This record gives sequence, C-alpha cells and structure tokens, in this order.
Amino acid sequence: MREQSAQGRWELWTQRPLLALAVVFAVAYAVPIVDTSADRAVTAVCTGVEWAVWGAFAVDYAVRLALTSDRRRFVRTHWLDLCAVVLPMVQQLKLLRLVSTLLLVGRRARMASQIRMTTYVVGAVVGLLMFGSLAVLSVERESPDGNIRTLGDALWWSFTTMTTVGYGDHAPTTGLGRLIAVGLMLSGIALLGVVTANIAAWFIARFDKDDVEERAQTEAILALTDEVRALRAEVAALRDRSLSP
Amino acid sequence: MREQSAQGRWELWTQRPLLALAVVFAVAYAVPIVDTSADRAVTAVCTGVEWAVWGAFAVDYAVRLALTSDRRRFVRTHWLDLCAVVLPMVQQLKLLRLVSTLLLVGRRARMASQIRMTTYVVGAVVGLLMFGSLAVLSVERESPDGNIRTLGDALWWSFTTMTTVGYGDHAPTTGLGRLIAVGLMLSGIALLGVVTANIAAWFIARFDKDDVEERAQTEAILALTDEVRALRAEVAALRDRSLSP
Amino acid sequence: MREQSAQGRWELWTQRPLLALAVVFAVAYAVPIVDTSADRAVTAVCTGVEWAVWGAFAVDYAVRLALTSDRRRFVRTHWLDLCAVVLPMVQQLKLLRLVSTLLLVGRRARMASQIRMTTYVVGAVVGLLMFGSLAVLSVERESPDGNIRTLGDALWWSFTTMTTVGYGDHAPTTGLGRLIAVGLMLSGIALLGVVTANIAAWFIARFDKDDVEERAQTEAILALTDEVRALRAEVAALRDRSLSP
Amino acid sequence: MREQSAQGRWELWTQRPLLALAVVFAVAYAVPIVDTSADRAVTAVCTGVEWAVWGAFAVDYAVRLALTSDRRRFVRTHWLDLCAVVLPMVQQLKLLRLVSTLLLVGRRARMASQIRMTTYVVGAVVGLLMFGSLAVLSVERESPDGNIRTLGDALWWSFTTMTTVGYGDHAPTTGLGRLIAVGLMLSGIALLGVVTANIAAWFIARFDKDDVEERAQTEAILALTDEVRALRAEVAALRDRSLSP
Repeated sequence: MREQSAQGRWELWTQRPLLALAVVFAVAYAVPIVDTSADRAVTAVCTGVEWAVWGAFAVDYAVRLALTSDRRRFVRTHWLDLCAVVLPMVQQLKLLRLVSTLLLVGRRARMASQIRMTTYVVGAVVGLLMFGSLAVLSVERESPDGNIRTLGDALWWSFTTMTTVGYGDHAPTTGLGRLIAVGLMLSGIALLGVVTANIAAWFIARFDKDDVEERAQTEAILALTDEVRALRAEVAALRDRSLSP
Repeated sequence: MREQSAQGRWELWTQRPLLALAVVFAVAYAVPIVDTSADRAVTAVCTGVEWAVWGAFAVDYAVRLALTSDRRRFVRTHWLDLCAVVLPMVQQLKLLRLVSTLLLVGRRARMASQIRMTTYVVGAVVGLLMFGSLAVLSVERESPDGNIRTLGDALWWSFTTMTTVGYGDHAPTTGLGRLIAVGLMLSGIALLGVVTANIAAWFIARFDKDDVEERAQTEAILALTDEVRALRAEVAALRDRSLSP
Repeated sequence: MREQSAQGRWELWTQRPLLALAVVFAVAYAVPIVDTSADRAVTAVCTGVEWAVWGAFAVDYAVRLALTSDRRRFVRTHWLDLCAVVLPMVQQLKLLRLVSTLLLVGRRARMASQIRMTTYVVGAVVGLLMFGSLAVLSVERESPDGNIRTLGDALWWSFTTMTTVGYGDHAPTTGLGRLIAVGLMLSGIALLGVVTANIAAWFIARFDKDDVEERAQTEAILALTDEVRALRAEVAALRDRSLSP
Repeated sequence: MREQSAQGRWELWTQRPLLALAVVFAVAYAVPIVDTSADRAVTAVCTGVEWAVWGAFAVDYAVRLALTSDRRRFVRTHWLDLCAVVLPMVQQLKLLRLVSTLLLVGRRARMASQIRMTTYVVGAVVGLLMFGSLAVLSVERESPDGNIRTLGDALWWSFTTMTTVGYGDHAPTTGLGRLIAVGLMLSGIALLGVVTANIAAWFIARFDKDDVEERAQTEAILALTDEVRALRAEVAALRDRSLSP
C-alpha cells in the first residue's frame, strides 16, 4: 500500500514539470524545421533538447516501475510506454523519437485526472496538427517533386486531411510523408467519431423518451408507499382497539 | 428578481428587431462583394450599415449587462460575446467584424426559445455557407493565382468543403481564404455530427429494447399495488369483525 | 371513418401499380440519355411516358385528397406532395419533373408499411445514384469544358460524391450539374448518418449497462411482492384465529 | 442433437487450419502482382494455391451442410456462402475468386467466438486495404492512362479512399478498378460507422443521466420493502397479543 501511494505521489508531483517539458520539446522540434537558415549549433542544441525530454519521460517510466507494487501488471498495462522508451535507443530515427515522445506525453496527460475529456481531445488534435504539419514539411521539402514547401501549406494540408476533406491541391509524395498522413487520417476519423458521439450523447440525453416511463414508475412506487402507510395506520388502529377492552 | 425580469423583458422585446438587423447586415455584406462595379458611395454606405448592426448588438450586450442582477456571472458566462463586442474596436479588420457580428447574432438566436433546434442548425448552416462563400470570394478574387472568381464557384466550393467532399477543382490559395475554409470545415464536421446524432437518437428511441423491461416493471408494481389493496380490505374486514361482538 | 377506410383501401390497391410505374419512369428517363443516337420519335415517346407517370401520381394525390375525411390536415401534412404535383404544371423543366416524380415515388414508397426501413434506405440510395448519374450526364455532356461524358464516368462520379470521397478527377462544371451534386452530397451525408446510427443503435443495445440496474430493480420488486404475500398470509392467519374462539 | 454437435465440432476443429489457409491465399495472391518479373511457373503455382484455398473453403461448406440437422435453414441463412462457392465454378474470373474467398474467410472468422468484435473489425480493415491495393494495382498497371503503378501508390490510394479523404492524386481509371474502389469506399463508410458507434456507445454509457433516476427508484423500492417489513412485525405482534389472553 505504501508503494502504491509513493507511485501516486510521484505521478502527482511530476505531472506539471513533464507537461512543461512537452512544450519545450514542441519548440525544440519546430525551430530547425521552420527556420531553415538556422546554423548547425542551433540544430544540435534542439536535437539535444529533444533527447533530454525523451530521457526525462524514460526516467519517469523507470521510477514509476520501481515504485509500483505489482511490476508485472505495470509492464503488461504499460507495454506501449515501454516500446516508446526502448525503441528510440535501438533505432535512432528522428520520426521514431517524435512518435515515442508524443506517445509518452499523451499517456501521462491522460493520467492527469484534473484534465477533462474535452480538453484532452482538443489538446491531442491541436498537437497532432502541429507535429503532423512540421513532420510532413521536413520530409516533403527534401523531395524533388514534393508540393508541400512552406509551413502555411503544411498546416493547410494537415487540416484538409484531418477533416477528411482532402482537396488534393497538396499531397505528400514520399513514403515517410504518406505514413504521417495515414496517422493524421486515423486521428481525423477518431476526432469525427468523438465529436459525433459527444453530440449524439447530448441529443439522446435530451430527447430521451424513457423518462416518461420512468417517471410513471416512480409515481407508481410512491402511490404504493402511500397505500402501505395507510395499511399500517389501519393495523395500528386495530391494535389500539384490541388493547382497549 | 426585478432586474432579472427587466433583462428577460428586454431580451424578448429586442429579439425580432435584432434578427431583422442580422438580415440587413447580410445584405450590406453581400452587395459590395457581388456587385464589383458598385461605386465608392454604395461601398461606404454598406460599411456604415455593417458598423451600425455590430453597434446595435454591442448596445444590446451593454443593456443586458446593466439590467442583470449578477454582473460577474453574466460576464463570465458571456465572455465570448464580450470579445465580439470589444475586438472590432481594437482591430478594425473586415473579417473580424464579420465573425464578431455572426457570433453575436448566433448567441442571440440561440436564446430565442421559440426557435427550435433543427431550425437553428439549418439557419446556422445556410448562414455559414452564404457568409463563407462571400468572404472567400472577396479574399480569393484579389489573389493572382486564386481559382475562386465568381459567386457560383464560391458557393460550389463552400458546399464541397462543408460536406467534406473536397473535389479540389477550386481551393483557396491565400492565408485568409484558408482560415475561412478551416471554419467551414469545422462547421461541416459539427453539421455531420448533428445530422448523424439526430438520426441515431431517432433510431435508438425507436428500436430501444429497454421499454420491454421497463413495461414489465411497471406491470409488476401495479400488480403489487393490487395485492396491497386486497390486503388492506382484508385488514378492514378483520377490524369490522373485532368491532361487531 | 368510412372515408378513412376508403383512403386506406385506395392506398393499398394503388401501391404496387404505382411502384411499377416508377420503374417505367426510370427506363423512360434513362433511354434518351444513354442512347444518344436515339431518333426524335423515341425521345418523344419517353417524354410522354415521363409525363404519364407523373400524371398517375398526380391523380393518386387528387383521389387520396378526395377520399380523406379531414382535407385541411391532409394538405397541411402533404404540402410537399402538393408542390410536386403543381410545380411541373407551372414550370415544365425536365429536372423539376424528375425531382417531383422521385419525391412522389419516395413518399408513396415510405407509406408502404410492408417495406422495411433498410430496404427503403438502400432503395433510395440506389435510386439517387442512378438518377443523379443520368441527370449529371445529360447536363454535363452539353457543357464545352465538362469532364463527365460517359455513363461510366457519371456513375463513378456519383459514387465518389455520395461517399464524400470526392477525388476531383471528375466534377460538374455547370450550375445545373452542381445543383444535382449538392443533392447527392446531402443524401450522402444522410446515408452516412443512417449507417452510423444503425451500427450505433446495435452497439448500444448490445453493450447497454442499464440492464444491470434494471434487473436489480425487478428483483427488488419481486422480493417486495413476496414480502407482501407473506404479510397477507399472516393477516389471514390472524383472522382465522379471531374467528375460531 | 448429435448432428448439431458434429457440425459444431467440425467448425471448432477446422477453424485454425482455415484461417491459416487464408494467410497462404494472401501470399499467393500478392506474389505475382508485387513481383512483376516472376516467371510463368511461379504464377501458375500461385493460381493453383488460390484455387486450392477456395476449394478447401468450398469443401468446408459442403461438410457443414452435410453435418447440419436442418439443411434448408442452413442454405437459407448461408446463401451468400453458397454463391461464393458456386460462382467461381461458373465464371472463372480472378476478381470473382478473390471476392468469393474473402467472403468465405470473413464468414468463418466471424463464427469464431474467441475472436472479439474489435479484432474482427481491425482484421477486416487491414485485409480489405491489402487486397484492395493489390487488386487495383494489378488492374490499373495494365491501363495506358492509369496512375497507380507501384505498390506504394496503391496502398496510399487505398488509405485515402477508405478514410473518404480522396485527394485525387491517384484514382482508378478502368471500370474494374473503380468497382474495387466502390467496395473500399463502402467498407470505409462502415468502418467510420463502427468507430463512431463504438466511441458513442462508450460516451453514452459514461455520461448516462438515467442512472440517477433509476438509483432513486431502487432506493424508493428498498425503503418501501422496509416499510412492509415493519408492518409485518406489527401484525405479528398483534397476533401474539391476540393469542396471549
């Protein structure tokens, strides 16, 4: 029980610093892509910051694993986090580091019970749009026949993709760019599903006809209670009478 | 209680004139965009009318704030209206004035309890299509490589965007045009959600199996009530008998 | 009551012949569009058949109006049918006649209680795809810069539009063609909504957690009934005892 | 009862081998399309394997039909399987064989009660994407003005189609390719529906307000039960008193 509590306290304490680190990661990721004229030193610093943020989340995972009471269950329920911690060590791809860090940030953010569902979804969508745009921009700018060459084009393309509009005035042409696009499309479908489901839940709760039947039931139960109470008074009167003579 | 009532009466009285002003705004917004040969005087009059309608809604907000009993709560729950009132004073952009006025109209229209949900949604969609088309047309016509140059093209593009079809035969090329497109796409997703949710709510209400269980419960409660009533008659008979000898 | 019954009998008798006429209308509409080398006589016969089918539905409306008991209510609840009957007389446009006849067929088909919801939706989608393809083909083939010139292209375009995929390899360029496209898009959104709602209703009915609570209630009511029955037996015993001495 | 049990045992025993055969079919279908330089012998072997897998499922259908107790009902509820077994014998088209085998695999996989709904949907989507890409690639590569010429392009096109994004940078140009596209679009709509429905069901189960009313009812019933129990004690006391003197 003490270990569980220690884990809980760690998660509460590290929550805000880790989310702040996520913002630092976003800036470090964006700078070398947006500012193409940035010299080598700036790029090196940004890559260092990216590795540091990923490292902080890896340490967080290790500490939580050390503090937990049931380590097997923790690894089993957090296998996706484990992959995100281990994979960048094995394969040091830029995209893999991005996905791993985003995954770790997302999993920690979802644990924060203070953050409401809507905030989480909106945050996830904005984050995916931003990182999707930047990632596609950095990949497609290299391609000779790519047509996504400015940050504006990349953002516009991300938006038309996530909303499944898909004009086709801009589209990724490289394999890596298309892989990022697939991720955005799947997120877009999930986003559409959450929006629709939210509205549907609100509609159904509002126009629900069941309440009529249920209110009738409640009234029937209350009427029955009155009936039983009257019966009890009757029996009490009977007892008084049987006592009196 | 008196202040609340005064606010309520003001909202009821100003409702129809304000919605009429919204139509006037639509005409004043459309004329200089559709009629490109309109001389300077007409454009100046239309801009004046736009400012006047926005001013009327700003005054309406101020009066409602003055009449309310709990001013802090009013500002807190109507902060979006406050932004729409204040922002056009600070930044006198045409698009900002349009969005502000549409926002104020939409908020007032939603308050009108006579207007049904479906009417509100249909009205919002038609309004967004119309203003989206006009705004994109006025922005894209200026752009040298724009491909939305007639009102017909703009309307057609709005429709393919809101329904998320997105052929791509017409697409905005400027930053401002794309910002308007993003607004239309988000509205389109919400529209899809409302339509789906509406149909889903109707389907679920229709095929709902719960009613069977609930009707069985109601019958069980009624049968039980009969049982208790019979019991009461029994006890009453018992009392009569205990009295008789 | 007699008039109502007469109306009901008329609707039952005319149902199958009218739906058969709808198939005849589909053939008469398709022939001059698909077979471009058809001579003037064939086209004239087809136009005649189209008018005849529309006329049959107009007569059906008149007879139902004559047989109904409450004519005002009938006109009020069937005002869309009235428009579809009256408008082709005023404006003899080909497209208006098509829409009017489709509307009348759809309203009559929905009345047929033998036809299940799913059959109706599938039928409506197939019908809209077919008539949408033919109508767009006949309109766009005339346009000098149109790109929908064969029946295959028209069908393919209809499908990509209704599913909101919208590749943009084919798109209508004329005002009339785009009007038909708007109709197809709206139907496509409704179709998506019906499919999603259907699946959602099935999912919700399957995973519904309410049943647990309701089954608990039913058990509580049954336990209560047992209790009351035991009480009644107790009182009966009491009465027997009070009788015995 | 023995026959039913025999059918059940057959289905349980053959389940894993048949699903393994489905993987073999996938490989045999993919090899000659991906490896265009494959010589005639390899292609012949692959075609043979495809026929063998289809044959195994046809035999499975025949055995299940032989083992069932009510053969008429089996044919009526499995008429789609019967078509998939008979049609490739009549018309030996490659596409028909693909669709028939996929249908038979899908129907058998759905019967496996160990496989959960989500696994089934994900499996179906991945399978449709893979076979849709390969089928479109093999068809469009032959077409002179086709624009889907590599496996990467085909996979990318399948994804943009199933998510209804539809950029239009790649689109099938042949009739057969478009037929496959229609299948992918319909699957995509169904996929969207399942995802939305799943999220909606989860949302509705979570935010359901009905529970409040129902819990109140349960409490009312329990309170009433207490009331009746007290009454019974009262009557019991009355009986004891009437006995004592």
